[in-house]
Amino acid sequence: MDFSKFRQITTFVFDVDGVFTDNSILVTENGDLLRTMNTRDGQALKYAMEKGYNIAIITKGFSKGVRIRFEMLGVPHIYDSLKEKVSAFEAYKSMLNLHKEEILYMGDDLPDLPVYDLAGISVCPADAAIDNLSKAQYITAKKGGEGCVREIIEKVMRIQNKWLI
Amino acid sequence: MDFSKFRQITTFVFDVDGVFTDNSILVTENGDLLRTMNTRDGQALKYAMEKGYNIAIITKGFSKGVRIRFEMLGVPHIYDSLKEKVSAFEAYKSMLNLHKEEILYMGDDLPDLPVYDLAGISVCPADAAIDNLSKAQYITAKKGGEGCVREIIEKVMRIQNKWLI
Amino acid sequence: MDFSKFRQITTFVFDVDGVFTDNSILVTENGDLLRTMNTRDGQALKYAMEKGYNIAIITKGFSKGVRIRFEMLGVPHIYDSLKEKVSAFEAYKSMLNLHKEEILYMGDDLPDLPVYDLAGISVCPADAAIDNLSKAQYITAKKGGEGCVREIIEKVMRIQNKWLI
Amino acid sequence: MDFSKFRQITTFVFDVDGVFTDNSILVTENGDLLRTMNTRDGQALKYAMEKGYNIAIITKGFSKGVRIRFEMLGVPHIYDSLKEKVSAFEAYKSMLNLHKEEILYMGDDLPDLPVYDLAGISVCPADAAIDNLSKAQYITAKKGGEGCVREIIEKVMRIQNKWLI
Repeated sequence: MDFSKFRQITTFVFDVDGVFTDNSILVTENGDLLRTMNTRDGQALKYAMEKGYNIAIITKGFSKGVRIRFEMLGVPHIYDSLKEKVSAFEAYKSMLNLHKEEILYMGDDLPDLPVYDLAGISVCPADAAIDNLSKAQYITAKKGGEGCVREIIEKVMRIQNKWLI
Repeated sequence: MDFSKFRQITTFVFDVDGVFTDNSILVTENGDLLRTMNTRDGQALKYAMEKGYNIAIITKGFSKGVRIRFEMLGVPHIYDSLKEKVSAFEAYKSMLNLHKEEILYMGDDLPDLPVYDLAGISVCPADAAIDNLSKAQYITAKKGGEGCVREIIEKVMRIQNKWLI
Repeated sequence: MDFSKFRQITTFVFDVDGVFTDNSILVTENGDLLRTMNTRDGQALKYAMEKGYNIAIITKGFSKGVRIRFEMLGVPHIYDSLKEKVSAFEAYKSMLNLHKEEILYMGDDLPDLPVYDLAGISVCPADAAIDNLSKAQYITAKKGGEGCVREIIEKVMRIQNKWLI
Repeated sequence: MDFSKFRQITTFVFDVDGVFTDNSILVTENGDLLRTMNTRDGQALKYAMEKGYNIAIITKGFSKGVRIRFEMLGVPHIYDSLKEKVSAFEAYKSMLNLHKEEILYMGDDLPDLPVYDLAGISVCPADAAIDNLSKAQYITAKKGGEGCVREIIEKVMRIQNKWLI
């Protein structure tokens, strides 16, 4: 792909399951589905927001705990319990008055495919579903839950000379 | 094996531990055994049911949470807390008036071996027990809990041109 | 090692952490330490007891849930919350009037080393501590928590023609 | 690096996430973040303290359970809920009247980088963040949560002939 596209990114939009997680869900006795997330992904979200990037979460699932986790990291826009993802993506894009070219979208499974067309760069983790691996413009080296969010944020920020460690 | 057999499948019957999970159970202080499942397997179950396939679960174990998880995915037939699996399989087959050739059964351990003979196609995950690896007609590339359910459903549906993504 | 020694085994004695688990402990907010165990190891314990083998657990740690888990599998002798393991091992051996040669002991870490000398066969998982890898007479191909208990039980029973599947 | 530096170490200071853990956090429904730790790391902490080494924990995060875990292992100095780590490190160093050369510090991510300069030896696990892999003086073979704490303690103690098993 054309790496100069990474220079235009101002906004990261992420799916949850299979991106922040390895798709595993711990099923409690009362049927709650608990996710396991990655602290290093959290570090990257916070650092990106500090440097002025927009961050949003768009997920069909719902977990009260996951919502609290993102809120505590300071993520301002969390869309969950969705039937499909395109409407939320479009609403978010309008609200912030964003151009397609400045948005990077990362998702790993079937409900993410329609969103790929609406983003400037479509990304999936190394262990995404077959159709996502085939359609995404960029595939991270890391798998879901193993720091793929950190990897893509760090990559974009380094290209833009914003990763100033 | 004869891959044309995959064309006749209308029905998927699954074991739980070692198939939807990697055999691990989280032991809580009061002795509950919590399973970790895979959201991408869940996506596949829902998509298969949407396209008209029958889905059933047959397991010797019992977990209230796992039962709730399958119910929320819309799985209509869940047989659990069983002494052995053959009777449940036969009861399910009669109830739906199914032919052996249209049923795919997937299981990973000793209690699944007698059921292999009763299904049109017997399947086990890549990390099944030795006797299952030796007897199953088809072995998925993925291990239990890592999306082996998704893999086998996707494979059958692609062969039947029902995976329309 | 001399594989004929496997023919004399009537009794399996196991450590818990690093054998039934991968050494990981989930730390709850009130400080409980939850273990993740393997259903296939459980299947092997039950099958071995059905065929007449003795099973015992000797662990320095304590977890109410783990104790319940072993009790529900029908393990008759569980020694936990120990300062050291030799006394419990000797007490168990006397109580059942066992000869050294008929006991297989499996453990993965420092507190298990003194017990190695008291058993007919000393075993450790593939990812045991350095000193255990160096001293144990037999190392399983599988790691702790990934079915190393199943592997060693299955191996002994197959050698003795007791694994009749 | 100069391995003779390992001979001067009397004190181990550790970060938590990514060192004692693989960076994963289990998100409960009320937003608690549960860590998964390693019993073999715990064994090493206890053995090192028995042999007279100083142990301290310095972490930006907070988990009541993790604090209880370290207290039960007997770790005397735990600094948590920090904005940054340098002040805590300096306070600890003054309190115990330590020289830079006798302190080994292990951390895996960005907040650990400033502390690297203040320790005699800076260490990170095999799967640390890129900047840490680049700056740390020593990288363990093991990853975070898989026993990297055990590995570095065991290494130092063996070099000093204090690992007397």
